[in-house]
Amino acid sequence: MNIDVIISANHINEEYLKNKIVVVIDMLRATSVIATAINNGAKEVIPILTVEEALKKKEELKANGIEALLGGERKAVKIDGFDFTNSPLEYTKEKIEGKTIILTTTNGTRAINLSKKAKKILIASMLNARAVVDALKNEKEDIIFINAGTNGEFSMDDYICSGYMISLLCRETCCNLSDISKTAKIIYENNINIIDFIKEAKHYNILKSLNLENDLYYCIKKDIIKIVPYFNKYKNSIEK
Amino acid sequence: MNIDVIISANHINEEYLKNKIVVVIDMLRATSVIATAINNGAKEVIPILTVEEALKKKEELKANGIEALLGGERKAVKIDGFDFTNSPLEYTKEKIEGKTIILTTTNGTRAINLSKKAKKILIASMLNARAVVDALKNEKEDIIFINAGTNGEFSMDDYICSGYMISLLCRETCCNLSDISKTAKIIYENNINIIDFIKEAKHYNILKSLNLENDLYYCIKKDIIKIVPYFNKYKNSIEK
Repeated sequence: MNIDVIISANHINEEYLKNKIVVVIDMLRATSVIATAINNGAKEVIPILTVEEALKKKEELKANGIEALLGGERKAVKIDGFDFTNSPLEYTKEKIEGKTIILTTTNGTRAINLSKKAKKILIASMLNARAVVDALKNEKEDIIFINAGTNGEFSMDDYICSGYMISLLCRETCCNLSDISKTAKIIYENNINIIDFIKEAKHYNILKSLNLENDLYYCIKKDIIKIVPYFNKYKNSIEK
Repeated sequence: MNIDVIISANHINEEYLKNKIVVVIDMLRATSVIATAINNGAKEVIPILTVEEALKKKEELKANGIEALLGGERKAVKIDGFDFTNSPLEYTKEKIEGKTIILTTTNGTRAINLSKKAKKILIASMLNARAVVDALKNEKEDIIFINAGTNGEFSMDDYICSGYMISLLCRETCCNLSDISKTAKIIYENNINIIDFIKEAKHYNILKSLNLENDLYYCIKKDIIKIVPYFNKYKNSIEK
């Protein structure tokens, strides 16, 4: 299989994704939130681009008898009137089991929304990386790892997370890697203790400055979640 | 100074380059050709996008009494009627001293032509990396390393070449690196024997399959050229 990496939501060419399997990564923190929420029993996560649309969606669902919860961030901080921030640690089983969550985040939601032409969209983070690789290894189509990035820019954390999955996948099956995929694999294999690498990342340091270190320690854990959330294009929501 | 890397000519946003210092890298092989040709005494190198424009430019110069030489490649091979290919080893002092060279290459020329809004455009390769860093270290403006890439894609060779220069520059002056710049620096510092890294590159393997190994061994040499060619926007040509 051919493997490629797109380094930021800004670089997504939607036509390029047609008939391909897309793996969206925004490990700090949208895709870690989604993996955690679905793993803890959320019924679905609906990714929404703007705060206004998120509030409108909540009203729409309410009119249909569904009491959705609102989660998300702008510039890494909580949105007024929302139930959750973008901290995966808030999405506990007690709070979200069986619930519909409407999530709006700066980078991750945007990457998911720009990937809708793909054949399949999987949601990945360090937390569920091995499970994603297990889901990918028997695929016939080309695989594109989309790094959400930070404000349209390359983000070290998403890149090494891609490298981890590419490294695992190459052990399982024959992969034809683009230069950017090979480089991601090398970055991971040269920096297996990923904290030493991502502590240099701009996004990591923004979160650290906001006292979100517990989130950081959680999001870099490898393979503690065994499920793969995927985006259901027909329902516009993410499910197990 | 702020330092950023653009990973392919396809990703150049011309407005972003305004008032910045751009360093164009196409180490396999356009910028290695330019550094070699200027170092061996060529009067100037005129980068041209298409073969047709190159032939027209030669006629124009001839009408003004200048006998220019034609160099370049398409898909890494020679162009009919041209004096040189894109092999830096052909650009010897005997053949090019005092001459004007019209150069058309797939990736490098395109990157130079898309960089014209920058304040300055320097031409870099492994061959003259240290000289480029010496020219940059006292600059006040932001610095953007533009990787020409290969057919619009990220190329490992250009990226590690950026990483080498960023690594040198950080030893000379205080640098604020974007995530993609930091990653380039780490890639270089983890792979100082760069041949082990770039032998994985698609572009390297294309050249190897064309029996251009001598070019490859030459282009990975560090710091054998002490000059910095720069693009003169007013003359549309590259000079010392």
